[in-house]
Amino acid sequence: MPETSDDESTSSEMMKCVSCKEEYDAEDAGTCRECYEEASETEEELKREIEELKSKVNFLRFWPPIDSRPHRSTSPCFTDVLLVAVDVDSGHPLANSAPVPANKAVLASRSPVFRAMLETEMEESLSGTIKLSDVSYDALRAFVNYLYTAEACLDDDMACNLIILADKYEVKHLKTYCEKFLISKLVLESSLISYLFAHQHNANNLLDAALSLILDNMDKISKREEYIELVDKDPRLVVEIYEAYLSKQVNTAVSSSHDDKVFLD
Amino acid sequence: MPETSDDESTSSEMMKCVSCKEEYDAEDAGTCRECYEEASETEEELKREIEELKSKVNFLRFWPPIDSRPHRSTSPCFTDVLLVAVDVDSGHPLANSAPVPANKAVLASRSPVFRAMLETEMEESLSGTIKLSDVSYDALRAFVNYLYTAEACLDDDMACNLIILADKYEVKHLKTYCEKFLISKLVLESSLISYLFAHQHNANNLLDAALSLILDNMDKISKREEYIELVDKDPRLVVEIYEAYLSKQVNTAVSSSHDDKVFLD
Repeated sequence: MPETSDDESTSSEMMKCVSCKEEYDAEDAGTCRECYEEASETEEELKREIEELKSKVNFLRFWPPIDSRPHRSTSPCFTDVLLVAVDVDSGHPLANSAPVPANKAVLASRSPVFRAMLETEMEESLSGTIKLSDVSYDALRAFVNYLYTAEACLDDDMACNLIILADKYEVKHLKTYCEKFLISKLVLESSLISYLFAHQHNANNLLDAALSLILDNMDKISKREEYIELVDKDPRLVVEIYEAYLSKQVNTAVSSSHDDKVFLD
Repeated sequence: MPETSDDESTSSEMMKCVSCKEEYDAEDAGTCRECYEEASETEEELKREIEELKSKVNFLRFWPPIDSRPHRSTSPCFTDVLLVAVDVDSGHPLANSAPVPANKAVLASRSPVFRAMLETEMEESLSGTIKLSDVSYDALRAFVNYLYTAEACLDDDMACNLIILADKYEVKHLKTYCEKFLISKLVLESSLISYLFAHQHNANNLLDAALSLILDNMDKISKREEYIELVDKDPRLVVEIYEAYLSKQVNTAVSSSHDDKVFLD
């Protein structure tokens, strides 16, 4: 093919990307063809693994007993325990709420706290009813739903409510799930409130994310109303923030003096 | 940096792969840097997704009631049904077997056949005991284990036994899992037996894989002892193989005559 020899000598200087089909030169060089093909295979393998895991999740997921889809509403689900949202003072069920049916086996396998309640001869195990205070009916339903499906429909309020429940009943997976949601919505304005909330409910991922945002904006934060309120309400927590701030400043100073040294060497 | 200009003019002809660090020319060009970086990000995202799915699987997985790990052997698991491997003729439990405890909710959520048994007023639902014939005690335990964990320790025998159970109790996920294992071990010598087995138990993935191997080796297959036995035992199945063979040949002929035409055009 003698006609193409011109093209070839040109393309030895400009390469054509097999992915975007644009030409590129040495400066913009990515991978050789072999590595590209290997990477494509890896990507295919990862995608196959994802499909397999998704089908495993679907297999392992339960339809919760309170599932309201029409064709299942009449099916019994062999539930053996009831969860009831009660008023913290009176101990009576909340108005407009109903007992949420569940399976002891599911509750015990998802939460060590439920397991302890149900395995020992505690009131809950004898009566077959678990009372939860400080929880709305909606949050209780979402909580039970998550224990069956590992899924929840979140907004800020629901995420906070579920973190409280996840902390109390030691459902780590749910806590991480809700923390991820709240971290993705973290803004400077709410960072102090998030920090306080995370502190109260041992949400360490959210705590770290909120603290990092606060430390990057100490000058703005210290003028905010929530800051003044927090100093009043929980000064120890404010001290913790300042300690982290100080420690960050020291570290920055050390590493920059270290950089200077390297530069001088 | 005037010193590097020489290097640049060289590297405009030979690129350096950012992955394997080897030089390459236009002929072996893969991607530009931008596409490489994009692909790397995609890979990272896929890996993160895999980690999340794995943690979801861990959360949703149950420890089966027959779990034999020492620290759990005494924990009750709120089981409410027993599975018993029985002799197909006498209906009595197999020797050296024991009832396998399980949860109705788990069985019903994994198998529509169990669901139907347990939800209606059938013998199984009333007695709380499900009898399974044609199954060894080991296979029964592995079966129940899979319903709780989506995992099984397979060899050829166990994979076949579990496919039989998966077919009978309509546990698709388990069938696919075992088929994958058997397909990975498929060889010409056993392809006819696998084909027959897959046909009997509606294992369509295994059926397709075995058939494809058979069709590629029809001359060798038709001389094998299993072939002669199969003609004797189930000639209709052999006809199906020949029909597939014929159809493959016709398709090949059509597409090659099509290629010829394109070539002539």
